[in-house]
Amino acid sequence: MNYKFVQNLSVPAQTKIAMIIMDGLGGLPLEPGGKTELETAHTPHLDELAAQSALGLTIPVGPGITPGSGPGHLSIFGYDPFQYEIGRGALEALGVDFDLGPNDIAARGNFCSVDEAGLVTDRRAGRIPTETNKELAKLLRTIRMEGVEFFIETIKEHRFAFVMRGSGLGEAVTETDPQKTGVPALPVNALQPDSQKTARIANQFIERARKLLVDKRPANMIMLRGFAKYPVLPTYQEIFGLRAAAIALNGMYRGVAKLAGMQVVKVDGDTLADEFTALELNWKDFDFFYLHVKKTDTAGEDGDFFGKVRAIEEVDALMPRLLALKPDVIIVSGDHSSPALLRSHSWHPVPTLLYSRYVRADHIAEFGEGACTRGGLGILPAKDLMPIALANAQRITKYGA
Amino acid sequence: MNYKFVQNLSVPAQTKIAMIIMDGLGGLPLEPGGKTELETAHTPHLDELAAQSALGLTIPVGPGITPGSGPGHLSIFGYDPFQYEIGRGALEALGVDFDLGPNDIAARGNFCSVDEAGLVTDRRAGRIPTETNKELAKLLRTIRMEGVEFFIETIKEHRFAFVMRGSGLGEAVTETDPQKTGVPALPVNALQPDSQKTARIANQFIERARKLLVDKRPANMIMLRGFAKYPVLPTYQEIFGLRAAAIALNGMYRGVAKLAGMQVVKVDGDTLADEFTALELNWKDFDFFYLHVKKTDTAGEDGDFFGKVRAIEEVDALMPRLLALKPDVIIVSGDHSSPALLRSHSWHPVPTLLYSRYVRADHIAEFGEGACTRGGLGILPAKDLMPIALANAQRITKYGA
Repeated sequence: MNYKFVQNLSVPAQTKIAMIIMDGLGGLPLEPGGKTELETAHTPHLDELAAQSALGLTIPVGPGITPGSGPGHLSIFGYDPFQYEIGRGALEALGVDFDLGPNDIAARGNFCSVDEAGLVTDRRAGRIPTETNKELAKLLRTIRMEGVEFFIETIKEHRFAFVMRGSGLGEAVTETDPQKTGVPALPVNALQPDSQKTARIANQFIERARKLLVDKRPANMIMLRGFAKYPVLPTYQEIFGLRAAAIALNGMYRGVAKLAGMQVVKVDGDTLADEFTALELNWKDFDFFYLHVKKTDTAGEDGDFFGKVRAIEEVDALMPRLLALKPDVIIVSGDHSSPALLRSHSWHPVPTLLYSRYVRADHIAEFGEGACTRGGLGILPAKDLMPIALANAQRITKYGA
Repeated sequence: MNYKFVQNLSVPAQTKIAMIIMDGLGGLPLEPGGKTELETAHTPHLDELAAQSALGLTIPVGPGITPGSGPGHLSIFGYDPFQYEIGRGALEALGVDFDLGPNDIAARGNFCSVDEAGLVTDRRAGRIPTETNKELAKLLRTIRMEGVEFFIETIKEHRFAFVMRGSGLGEAVTETDPQKTGVPALPVNALQPDSQKTARIANQFIERARKLLVDKRPANMIMLRGFAKYPVLPTYQEIFGLRAAAIALNGMYRGVAKLAGMQVVKVDGDTLADEFTALELNWKDFDFFYLHVKKTDTAGEDGDFFGKVRAIEEVDALMPRLLALKPDVIIVSGDHSSPALLRSHSWHPVPTLLYSRYVRADHIAEFGEGACTRGGLGILPAKDLMPIALANAQRITKYGA
């Protein structure tokens, strides 16, 4: 559904909505006929909440489509993931908490190795230590050009975020990573006239970088890819009338939440319990809370079935602290599935729970993939969840006479 | 979802997908509270496969819409049945294995009876024997005109396929069948300027045919309807990267598969077992196999409930031969429903089974309409099934960063 439609029906209310996103929540059994990670986990609090909730399965992007973190989050936040796209570069910059401006061009950078002839010998420069990366980033920051500002932010190992700030920079340019070794890195080419300046400046930067790094083997060259501006989204305040807070330990999720106009609140510490403390401390100041759980996805991508089970159980154990705040609406879901069996994101629909005093509960006292298949929300596009949450929060009025 | 979207995410793999289409599979109980044809059939192999599969119901065209064979097949093949249309004429020509070219105009022809005043007295010429039709077709083939070639292919009884081949022939023309008796057949009129040549030549052909048939009562005239070119579809190779094979005993289904770029493989014999033999013989040479089962629909349209039950049981008995090939993904579904109770195609959603090692099985050990209603695929547009099959075959990569 179009957000403008929902926006037009939006009415003020005093209600509060809490959205707990367990990253990569959906799973698969290790053996045919077995239980998924969520079904294996001992989750007494979620099961009890499920009995008073409507359950369902959300499809983040489309049937059979495996979403990246960007489209996965945009859709559960209620945005059409086809209409808004967060490019790789923008996502990486958000991931290091870089404060991207609307005219900045971000790219994902790699240190790499080239031989005397300039042919790429290692696309990841032997995965240099992060400390080395930080030293080399300082060197790259010495590159200056008239009318444009550069930012180089170390991510990890050979990876860094690269940002160009200046006027007249378009994002429609090609990448320099040839995706294989034994060939030279590619030049940046403009795909549209408005991006010619971007291409010219990026090529000059790369040439300057090559000269600076010439004796820094194995990291004696850089490659840039995923050039992107960030998409300008209508904010939660604008479309839903919500003062929204984001609680996340990882920059990428804080960044995507910022795009939606959420205020990123401070988490004192780096545990899930610390995130729940931040929730409590900010409870009175916002209408909507997005709380991101990273460990479920990390374990899934590592193929660590029982690590993912424990991560889910950790959330369950903290649920009483959320329930004590008496939210009017609670969503528990994921941005996509990450079955340990596949060691990656996957296309499978995501188990979803929606609690409110006014939800039509389906009386299934279990939160799991099988239970959600039988649930009252059915199988629905993830972007349709927010309007249902807003309705349950009595924040949408009647349509039509 | 747009096929271009899937096309952009398509990646190569060694996996194989088998799609068994039981024509008109969906059914209804004969008595309220009873079982459908599929639920009545003894299907131990399909039931066992169902337990390891995700079940669902596919909607071929739209809620409440009864599909013809053309849209039914296009949608289960993954095409939008609103975007691509196979006209009646093209479908009839495909049905007699006519090798339609991209500029050919095909129409469905009827021999009919007219009186001395030229008024239609029988739209089907008393359903003349097929042998008579073949004799008259030879006569019509003697009609020649400058710059255009005609093809007349007997279908059955009074029906034939009519094809015009030449340059500058559009398909936007009216039909000559007045759909009632006591009136003259209508002239062919162009609906668009690009189809004026088609109308002129078709009218000349009909006039020449009338003269040739004048003493051939009851088949002393012809009517043409459903003028159409065939739609140019993006092929399975182009959009899904699949080398696809089609196995079908009836020309119409071979024809529709050819439109999708599938290679029609030889079936030595005319039984379902012969089709499975063709599947085995071609297994190593293709990535995707479409195997069409006709008898289910024939029995449904004949109102033969137990004939349809037996046709389904025949498929079940042959399933071990498919399973022995160890496909990575198996789809068992239909192109539409044909309940014996209705003696026709119907609008009811179609029972669908999708098996793979990576499907999220719903542990329902039964393949039937009721079981599919509770399944993990939910109720979904038939055209969304192929992306899910491709995902399970690990032939689609992640969307977005």
